[in-house]
Amino acid sequence: MFEPALLVLHSPAKPAAGAADPVEPVFTQHDTAAPVANALDLGITRGDGIFETITVINGMPQALDAHLKRFARSARMLELPEPDAAAWKHTLLAAIDSRELVPEAFVKLLYSRGVEGSGQPTGWVWLAESGDFTKARTEGIRVVLLDRGYASTVEQTSPWLLQGAKTLSYAVNRAALREAERRGADDVIFVSSDGYLLEGPTSTVVLKLDDRFVTPRTTLGILPGTTQESIFEIARVNGFETAYEVLTPADLRRADAAWLVSSVRNAAPVNAVDGAPRAIDAELTEAINAGLASRTV
Amino acid sequence: MFEPALLVLHSPAKPAAGAADPVEPVFTQHDTAAPVANALDLGITRGDGIFETITVINGMPQALDAHLKRFARSARMLELPEPDAAAWKHTLLAAIDSRELVPEAFVKLLYSRGVEGSGQPTGWVWLAESGDFTKARTEGIRVVLLDRGYASTVEQTSPWLLQGAKTLSYAVNRAALREAERRGADDVIFVSSDGYLLEGPTSTVVLKLDDRFVTPRTTLGILPGTTQESIFEIARVNGFETAYEVLTPADLRRADAAWLVSSVRNAAPVNAVDGAPRAIDAELTEAINAGLASRTV
Repeated sequence: MFEPALLVLHSPAKPAAGAADPVEPVFTQHDTAAPVANALDLGITRGDGIFETITVINGMPQALDAHLKRFARSARMLELPEPDAAAWKHTLLAAIDSRELVPEAFVKLLYSRGVEGSGQPTGWVWLAESGDFTKARTEGIRVVLLDRGYASTVEQTSPWLLQGAKTLSYAVNRAALREAERRGADDVIFVSSDGYLLEGPTSTVVLKLDDRFVTPRTTLGILPGTTQESIFEIARVNGFETAYEVLTPADLRRADAAWLVSSVRNAAPVNAVDGAPRAIDAELTEAINAGLASRTV
Repeated sequence: MFEPALLVLHSPAKPAAGAADPVEPVFTQHDTAAPVANALDLGITRGDGIFETITVINGMPQALDAHLKRFARSARMLELPEPDAAAWKHTLLAAIDSRELVPEAFVKLLYSRGVEGSGQPTGWVWLAESGDFTKARTEGIRVVLLDRGYASTVEQTSPWLLQGAKTLSYAVNRAALREAERRGADDVIFVSSDGYLLEGPTSTVVLKLDDRFVTPRTTLGILPGTTQESIFEIARVNGFETAYEVLTPADLRRADAAWLVSSVRNAAPVNAVDGAPRAIDAELTEAINAGLASRTV
């Protein structure tokens, strides 16, 4: 058991070419109970920023480069200054080093446009021990399908809707989870207004369909899944084919197995859709989660 | 000229019936440069909260009850604890009292679900002098129409999308304004995916159409406009009819006059739509803004 750690980056954006050497030290460690954010930070007033959550197994951040790549992609979509990957990496590793080794922790990167008018983005790194997700991983989760309201084409037609970016504007995702709870479920799979499976509020959908592992195409306006990518690697090593496809609720219902996959909780098998029970593959799920826990990158 | 004021509410939610008397004092005043927010406040990490911005003319907050009513409505839509209207009112009036009188200031109310797991919502009040909006009010603004991606029915069909709530998840509104700038415009009017006029990212659309004042119906998934409501009152006093209707881009183009109206900036006449110039009614706009500036409630 350890106390959470909170580090504030001094210079979270990549310095301009030819700029002076970055400020040293790179971060300041703070008391987690103490306030660190200005009330006018655009991360608060407008949800104008991005984040990543990375699992840390025995001190090893998992799929770190994939997370940092997605972090940079979200920044581009929001036209935030490019994050300084080296500074973020240095800071998150320092957070991990500052605490004892535990089997499962997570580190959260928060990057906002900063205080309005300052032109200085804000960066925070938060490290804490993970909760116990044994029940979700073994018994599974009940999901409901909820309309996300957007057509599957919006990422191409309307980039200002920021679909596919991991933003600090997640009030809708939280509201969807409350709606799921009201319907007696644990989680949500969003469906596009034209009827395609998208993603969970904080997870990626993976199906085992006709003996292949499939996930919705990211061109539908969804996040590229870092945990899903790791699962696809594990699947391929074990002789399965993998594919990115356009999927429907009917595919979810006829799939041999279905999971919501994400950092921290890893693969949670779906045991019910809109109140209708469905089978889970306990053995395969265990193998997937064992594979995720033993990642070396 | 005055320095902005920042007040933190001690108990922003309404106490439960039968609860002990509220903590006194109601707020603490803070240095605006000092951090007041915890990095794990859900207002930051999830944009999970709401806000209101209220114009203050010579120390008088404008349309205060309408703003507090909308604040309570947004809270209900996000299932936040009901804000303690008396505490918010007391705090914002104290912020105004703490500063000299100026012709135009604004006060911002920020209310979040608080630090994750704490069950304690957070409330901040921010007061600052307004910028100079003379140019927007007299020469007008260029707008572009942007698809909001949602059908006009989502508020009824999909309440978890929070359309019509004034949330801290405004990254899309900010991205839309950057898109407008890229297209050589100053502001945006969102259009539903089924082709109806909605609202601006931080304003309400008002048209003068066939000698009546009309605005889009709030059932289309948009905010009820406090400034628009005041303008309708002014219009009725001056013998005009007013109406809430389903409007299209064609109505915007054929209107005698069009405005984006909001607290702080008040009525800004639209002088171009998607690059096509359109007439403004300078005299009527001046009368409307004079009417707004002399509101007594």
